[in-house]
Amino acid sequence: MGWAIALHGGSGDIPKDLPPELREHREASLRYCLQIGVDAIKAQKSPLDVVELVQVRELENNPYFNAGRGSVLTSNGTVEMEACIMDGNTKNCGAVSGLTTVVNAISLARLVMEKTPHIYLAFEGAEAFAREQGVETTDSSHFITPRNIERLKQAKEANKVQSRDSRLNSSVVLNIEMLSALVFLVNIAATNLQVDYNTRPIPKDDKTPAPSGDSQLGTVGCVSVDSFGHLAAATSTGGHVNKMVGRIGDTPIIGAGTYANKLCAVSATGKGEAIIRATVARDVAALMEYKGLSLKEAADYVIEESAPKGTTGLIAVSATGEVSMPFNTTGMFRACATEDGHTELAIW
Amino acid sequence: MGWAIALHGGSGDIPKDLPPELREHREASLRYCLQIGVDAIKAQKSPLDVVELVQVRELENNPYFNAGRGSVLTSNGTVEMEACIMDGNTKNCGAVSGLTTVVNAISLARLVMEKTPHIYLAFEGAEAFAREQGVETTDSSHFITPRNIERLKQAKEANKVQSRDSRLNSSVVLNIEMLSALVFLVNIAATNLQVDYNTRPIPKDDKTPAPSGDSQLGTVGCVSVDSFGHLAAATSTGGHVNKMVGRIGDTPIIGAGTYANKLCAVSATGKGEAIIRATVARDVAALMEYKGLSLKEAADYVIEESAPKGTTGLIAVSATGEVSMPFNTTGMFRACATEDGHTELAIW
Repeated sequence: MGWAIALHGGSGDIPKDLPPELREHREASLRYCLQIGVDAIKAQKSPLDVVELVQVRELENNPYFNAGRGSVLTSNGTVEMEACIMDGNTKNCGAVSGLTTVVNAISLARLVMEKTPHIYLAFEGAEAFAREQGVETTDSSHFITPRNIERLKQAKEANKVQSRDSRLNSSVVLNIEMLSALVFLVNIAATNLQVDYNTRPIPKDDKTPAPSGDSQLGTVGCVSVDSFGHLAAATSTGGHVNKMVGRIGDTPIIGAGTYANKLCAVSATGKGEAIIRATVARDVAALMEYKGLSLKEAADYVIEESAPKGTTGLIAVSATGEVSMPFNTTGMFRACATEDGHTELAIW
Repeated sequence: MGWAIALHGGSGDIPKDLPPELREHREASLRYCLQIGVDAIKAQKSPLDVVELVQVRELENNPYFNAGRGSVLTSNGTVEMEACIMDGNTKNCGAVSGLTTVVNAISLARLVMEKTPHIYLAFEGAEAFAREQGVETTDSSHFITPRNIERLKQAKEANKVQSRDSRLNSSVVLNIEMLSALVFLVNIAATNLQVDYNTRPIPKDDKTPAPSGDSQLGTVGCVSVDSFGHLAAATSTGGHVNKMVGRIGDTPIIGAGTYANKLCAVSATGKGEAIIRATVARDVAALMEYKGLSLKEAADYVIEESAPKGTTGLIAVSATGEVSMPFNTTGMFRACATEDGHTELAIW
């Protein structure tokens, strides 16, 4: 028993020949994100608060991740963000899709969970609910970065709808962008001795060069368990580049991209359609519940046997504080920490 | 081994004191619907064709069911229809939500499955895709019946969002409406010695009296297996009365309201939010896959142990031609037939 936390920033085919300095930056920055979560846990925040306020909102507000600001664009050049949050103890959950003006999709998902008789609101209805609740909204242009305009242009030129993962193919660009994000976070850490959880560091300009290749940063997710064994999961995404308007992916689907019960909490990342078909997040829990597998065995089974190779990564924590972060892509941006002092951060 | 088919027209708390003549009408009409499916199976139609073209479209076009024409209304007085279809052999699937003009939601779901790289399209994007594909659309007013306007008015007066099931409480009205639907179908049967699968019998006027009580007809669903063990599932709904605009229920969620793999096909009906939390449809399959249960054992477990009492009904068929139709509500409109000659139709 003990608390644990894990987070991801997307999975995909990430080349293994990154220069050492990039790796160092990455590791430092993943550690920073993780520390925010660990501090929140130690401050007795609930797992639900941890996954919402610390990890996912932090990541949503970082334009280098594909969620909130930084979301990739639909074939029409618009953003349609989606998110999901679930409390393992009660199985209460909330989900949103098709957001165009809401700054923090994950927080709106939580409001759907807590303030409506429903689980899932989408598109105009979700936006109307956001306005009714008075959550922070902004002009859609806020979410659209030059990088993503370029990315859409490239996708259209390639005349294909790109899956989250395929877009990571041969993309050193991706890793440079990720590096930028990590450096960005490290800089924040360096200038803030005390982490202010209300601070949402958003660079005011977007000077990162547009990618020259076919690339995309990942969906973000976080799972957490406290020392009482209470679990929560959250996932947030902009979907994938050049998606059809109206496309819903795995992220907001309870049991696909996001799931939590009394046994475990799971957030998945990768090719959304494959994750939906394999009911990835629920299956990790179902294998524990119905087959008696451990968290690691269950997560490995889903990644090795259920989800097609090259499509899926997931992070999971169990009620007893175990962590598992398997993937069948080349890599997954991920980090975790547990009460007993184990810390891990890695890409491949 | 052998083919099998099952269909439902919603579950809920249906009073058991229906007059005998109502019961006779009901039984005759359920038998008619079932016969359409059986004839299609015998005509070598694929399970996917059976669940789409025969059962669900037929039911969608009947204004006495809560799907397609006859869909209940949102709090704004609009219709937002959703549907899902899944092929067990390939796990290919398609889903749609937020439809306002598409005559047959289930057929659009199938087009999403077959014509896009995605699984799930919703709201404006789904409507745009419908127009692009040239499927039949109509003015939204087509779907809105006087009965449902009255139903919404009553729901608003009761100042509550009604779940599908709670709306069936103390509603003899419901059963009279169901009777009307069944009589309607029987009349069609009587005037058509040969069933024409292309005929979509839609009464041109809606003279059924508005309900005096709190009632709603159910979601519709169909599952089918052919003699080769190929499975398919489909579900279609208007959601529930007075739902918030943008609300997505269990029907289009793979693993919640609809699921099929190589072991079984499942369609659920009831209180959508409860079905989502319990990942009802996937869990039937997961219990077979991971715990080695039979179809009946798995379906019973989900209804008795996973889904809260009073919330859920499901129909399921296995690859070997077994059928199970358990529910934890008072009743579920349901029917089934198997190759070995077993036929069943019942409400309670």
